[in-house]
Amino acid sequence: MPVPYIDDILSQAEGLKEALEEFDPQPLETVCRFIEMGKYDRVILTGMGASFYGAYPAWLKLCGLGLPVILWDTAELLHYALPQVGSRTLLWVISQSGESAEIHRLLERLTAPRPGLLLGVTNNPTSTLARAAEVVLPLHAGNEHMVSTRTYINTIAVTLLAAAALSGESVSAWKEILWQGQAGMEAYLNAWPQHLAALREQAGKLNRLFLLGRGPSLASAQEGALVLKEAAKFPAEGMGAAQFRHGPLEIVEPGIAVWLFGGAQATYELNRGLGLEIQGYGGQVTWLSPTSVEGLPWLSLPAVPEAALPLVEILPVQALSVALAEASAREPGQFRYIGKITDQE
Amino acid sequence: MPVPYIDDILSQAEGLKEALEEFDPQPLETVCRFIEMGKYDRVILTGMGASFYGAYPAWLKLCGLGLPVILWDTAELLHYALPQVGSRTLLWVISQSGESAEIHRLLERLTAPRPGLLLGVTNNPTSTLARAAEVVLPLHAGNEHMVSTRTYINTIAVTLLAAAALSGESVSAWKEILWQGQAGMEAYLNAWPQHLAALREQAGKLNRLFLLGRGPSLASAQEGALVLKEAAKFPAEGMGAAQFRHGPLEIVEPGIAVWLFGGAQATYELNRGLGLEIQGYGGQVTWLSPTSVEGLPWLSLPAVPEAALPLVEILPVQALSVALAEASAREPGQFRYIGKITDQE
Repeated sequence: MPVPYIDDILSQAEGLKEALEEFDPQPLETVCRFIEMGKYDRVILTGMGASFYGAYPAWLKLCGLGLPVILWDTAELLHYALPQVGSRTLLWVISQSGESAEIHRLLERLTAPRPGLLLGVTNNPTSTLARAAEVVLPLHAGNEHMVSTRTYINTIAVTLLAAAALSGESVSAWKEILWQGQAGMEAYLNAWPQHLAALREQAGKLNRLFLLGRGPSLASAQEGALVLKEAAKFPAEGMGAAQFRHGPLEIVEPGIAVWLFGGAQATYELNRGLGLEIQGYGGQVTWLSPTSVEGLPWLSLPAVPEAALPLVEILPVQALSVALAEASAREPGQFRYIGKITDQE
Repeated sequence: MPVPYIDDILSQAEGLKEALEEFDPQPLETVCRFIEMGKYDRVILTGMGASFYGAYPAWLKLCGLGLPVILWDTAELLHYALPQVGSRTLLWVISQSGESAEIHRLLERLTAPRPGLLLGVTNNPTSTLARAAEVVLPLHAGNEHMVSTRTYINTIAVTLLAAAALSGESVSAWKEILWQGQAGMEAYLNAWPQHLAALREQAGKLNRLFLLGRGPSLASAQEGALVLKEAAKFPAEGMGAAQFRHGPLEIVEPGIAVWLFGGAQATYELNRGLGLEIQGYGGQVTWLSPTSVEGLPWLSLPAVPEAALPLVEILPVQALSVALAEASAREPGQFRYIGKITDQE
């Protein structure tokens, strides 16, 4: 019997292809001009769930912009931080459906003052978000089942390309980086049965799992934990590798597994040191990276430029979610309570 | 045999008393003047672990300031977002020890450009952070053992008072709110043996626990999860209640426990609805608030003004950490790997 979630996973490279081909920076030209003219005093990115985590690499990229850049959980922004949105705010709302309860409520409240500009990223060009936004960037992810797969990948790609455009960098150079990521995804997904088989044995023994990363790979750690909860009902926790050292490390002992994303060069060695330390305390560490490190069990990722790592890092986590669901005799990716659109706050 | 962690817990109301008596807004007057003069274009708060979570209520409070306000994990700021710190940045660094690895590294790198002003909050007035900062606010938390207790409470109080001062609000009115929180803490801690006894039965049955909150109570959810990991080696996860609805809710079934902070009025009803829904799916929900709600098992907190809730919300989590440690025959609050100061990145 076909499993819609697995079909969604397997079509992610194809979905990204469409996003890269269709991405059009033209609507952002006015925004760039407004930035140059000093019309904005801040950029606020906001979203929930996969949209929130998927925006993280773009947030880091925008940090070079000169303007203050803030990433806010929409629920917190809405109820506790709305005075931060003013007439000089470039408000960037990310929502695959464009219809989440928090997005509706936020849009209702953005009246006095209106933000300087509302930039929407959504997979539904006729959604409430798309209709409210002055500039809309479509995700081109097609229809997906329940768990975010193509929409997550395309959120990373579209927000990174837009961040490059807003930063005055070459969009085509960034597209080239992401095309290399796309090729890496394709290579991984072409060998899906082997990857899944390799994870099945590990899955049966897993009890408690932490996913750790830094920089853009923090998106993979957090979205990965969400995917494991949604698709396999498995309580993995995602966290920054540095935050893990500030206390949670105390939890490590035999029976605790850690998937550690090697990630970008800037923090690769720090992650490696943490991995060896966790292993020294009896934790079962798996190192996820295109490159291996001595002394740590390695789950190899396709070689892609470091800015494209989040595109391939999530794939083994998705495979693990399928293996874990199978191990507990569930249909992977099937929701039991919530819908595709979170319509309650 | 005396347990240093429990001594630390029991002395938190006393520790807060000292912080409230000693808090002096005078050094912030210059900073206020500089804010009025437009010397800053952003405020960046940063810290790790308990200092990071403890700064959250102050972050929300500062959102009314007009200036863009950002809360950054120091490790991420340092390695991936340093261009955000410029000569017009009011950089607010929070570190109880003033000596964490990330704080050292950050201070080394703050040379070109220097931030407009470095505001330090620390428990050690002779620390590297205190020496580097132009304005230092001491925590007055005394010496504590391993897990952050008095330093966490005092971080909340001192950062909130400072946020009030920077926002031009009455510091004495805010002190009064926090004094009511202090009285609530005292009442809870005076009945410590009863609170602990009540949690002992629950602790033995706990398997998987989520701590959920919104607004200022999100600090309690996240710090609470950290405390349970550090003090009891128990894998609780803290999360925003709204983020929990966006996917993780799928994990709920019998055997999953949720401690839900009722929190402030703005989101009290939303939390109540989520609690009832989780319970409907078989989850074991505990409602933590000064007020009960129909249909949910209630763990009552002392009645304090809502802005002071984080001061009392953490207390039952600390009690649970002691009960959980006892249930697994560990000394509560004893570290096995890390030191009081996280001196590695």
